[in-house]
Amino acid sequence: MHSLTAVPFVVSPLDHGLEPALCRKIDGKTKPPGALGRLEALALQIGLVRGSLAPTLNQPHIVVFAGDHGAAKAGISAFPQEVTWQMVENFLVGGAAINVFARANGIGLTVVDAGVNHDFGARPNLIDAKVGAGGTAPAGPAANMGTASYLDGPAMTSQQRDLALAKGAEIVGRLADNGCEVMGFGEMGIGNTASAALLTHCLTGAALAACVGRGTGLDDAGLARKRELLGTALSRYAGPRDDALAVLAQFGGFEIAMMTGAMLAAAQRRLLVLVDGFICGAAALVAARIAPAFLDYAVFCHASAEAGHRAQLAALGANPLLSLDLRLGEGTGAALAWPLVRAAAAFLNEMASFESAGVSAKT
Amino acid sequence: MHSLTAVPFVVSPLDHGLEPALCRKIDGKTKPPGALGRLEALALQIGLVRGSLAPTLNQPHIVVFAGDHGAAKAGISAFPQEVTWQMVENFLVGGAAINVFARANGIGLTVVDAGVNHDFGARPNLIDAKVGAGGTAPAGPAANMGTASYLDGPAMTSQQRDLALAKGAEIVGRLADNGCEVMGFGEMGIGNTASAALLTHCLTGAALAACVGRGTGLDDAGLARKRELLGTALSRYAGPRDDALAVLAQFGGFEIAMMTGAMLAAAQRRLLVLVDGFICGAAALVAARIAPAFLDYAVFCHASAEAGHRAQLAALGANPLLSLDLRLGEGTGAALAWPLVRAAAAFLNEMASFESAGVSAKT
Repeated sequence: MHSLTAVPFVVSPLDHGLEPALCRKIDGKTKPPGALGRLEALALQIGLVRGSLAPTLNQPHIVVFAGDHGAAKAGISAFPQEVTWQMVENFLVGGAAINVFARANGIGLTVVDAGVNHDFGARPNLIDAKVGAGGTAPAGPAANMGTASYLDGPAMTSQQRDLALAKGAEIVGRLADNGCEVMGFGEMGIGNTASAALLTHCLTGAALAACVGRGTGLDDAGLARKRELLGTALSRYAGPRDDALAVLAQFGGFEIAMMTGAMLAAAQRRLLVLVDGFICGAAALVAARIAPAFLDYAVFCHASAEAGHRAQLAALGANPLLSLDLRLGEGTGAALAWPLVRAAAAFLNEMASFESAGVSAKT
Repeated sequence: MHSLTAVPFVVSPLDHGLEPALCRKIDGKTKPPGALGRLEALALQIGLVRGSLAPTLNQPHIVVFAGDHGAAKAGISAFPQEVTWQMVENFLVGGAAINVFARANGIGLTVVDAGVNHDFGARPNLIDAKVGAGGTAPAGPAANMGTASYLDGPAMTSQQRDLALAKGAEIVGRLADNGCEVMGFGEMGIGNTASAALLTHCLTGAALAACVGRGTGLDDAGLARKRELLGTALSRYAGPRDDALAVLAQFGGFEIAMMTGAMLAAAQRRLLVLVDGFICGAAALVAARIAPAFLDYAVFCHASAEAGHRAQLAALGANPLLSLDLRLGEGTGAALAWPLVRAAAAFLNEMASFESAGVSAKT
């Protein structure tokens, strides 16, 4: 299903040995059987991922990857490309939605420049993980630092893709080494719903029209133009459409590729992975095609209002925790769902059992 | 629509004067317009309820009302009646789901004995608000301290109903006086899905069968028996079915009546009210029939897996924030939804605007 890559990800399927004991523990809690609904399935998943009847989810963290898309200049977004770097500045001063939600819910936040078309200089709270000028774009101080446009050729070379995967994995590794046990991912990149739509179309087989949405707010004419441009991009690509790594290089963004590497590395280290909306879902789709066991570690956090998310979720068999008509990205859906995940672990660890509380069982 | 009551509740409809300014503030945040979906509508509601462009929701609190139902002895629940008091003991030692979720999400918790058929004695962390022996049951030390059975007559007298409403209002008043600005409610009472089903049927006109569910886990035979018994209870009631206060006395529980008074008092004091699932929804339905403006202050927190909740929500025009197949009660859905409500207020108060952050607007 995929080309060779320089970064070998080995994601082990969950060991279900603990499942009977976890189910007994969940069923013994002082509640009617099944009364906590989806939180019970979530508690079971958490126990299996962490390999414990008393799982911890310490140091929840969200990593936001930002990157620019060469194709954005062609007019596939309602906002100009410079909004990507302006929003990174907003993240750095704590003024964006993801900052607010992460603070409100006790989640650490790391911002990564995966390939923004802007020179931030040295910044203490920004990880510089730029991959380089995209595709075959000329180098030099005035060069594009985002991806090349997939309207002209591959968005990135396979070397750049593998570098992005490796950098994502490295960032996760450092956070995990420092004690993080649950990680969510977010993104910022003007034009990245277009990239996610192409990846979703190629990897799920859903009709392109069903994968393309209004993104940050295109009107009808803008949506029609986006669909047409993406159809053109597809017609110019002669490579395999079911090869996750090939389409990632062709249509991906640096932030999506880096997030894919980050997700795979998090699963490899048995962290629980919080998957945000449509763009993160595209990275999760690529990750699942590279290593199907990735899905064992993933919690799908929210159903995006972006049209293509439905096709993605159907292909992944995912039923997100929240459905609030969000379509912002940044990891906001993951940040908002975290208290539910924490609650699932908390009931497993803290609730009394019928036996311990002396409560009568069902008649 | 309702009888006279000794407790006059005056719930003012929201003043929408602030709405244009609140909408401008929400639209000016650094996100595409509408991208925070239902949290934007929630932020607007919070601003209007609290009457502020920078609303606070300090000291979130959940009050759990417990009460017993005379009809429970007839076999309408999968669990025996003594589970009500046993679960109250569980609340008092912090072992129930609502304790866990309230702790996890920073919510204060108060437990109220609204009429449990058990003598708890003096307990420092339990509010004794017993209403007395239900209906026309004989008094005395061995008397039933829950409601009477609606299979034999009214569950409570109109005086008991009004006393319950007043005690609920009084408890809310004390919490509000101490600084609580957002309040959720929960309940515990073996048999109370049956009571809620009868209230829902009478006040919405939905078919009884659509209002009756499995509660804590009845099997098919148990569900059939519950439906038959409730049909009998209805056939023995000759009073008006669209009179909220009359049906509350006939079929209600003390915990439901007290919660109704609490909800109305909270709205009267311009607190935001977090409505849990099916039983709380029945109280909210009664509250809305007494004072329709109550709904302006209500946030419906979760869609219960209990069958009758759909009929209730449809009648109230409510679309809950969460849908997680919960059917536990105790206020657990309200506790789990609180972080979303807090997040809505937080983005309104803390997010940067396009102007303040220097982010380019839509092209």
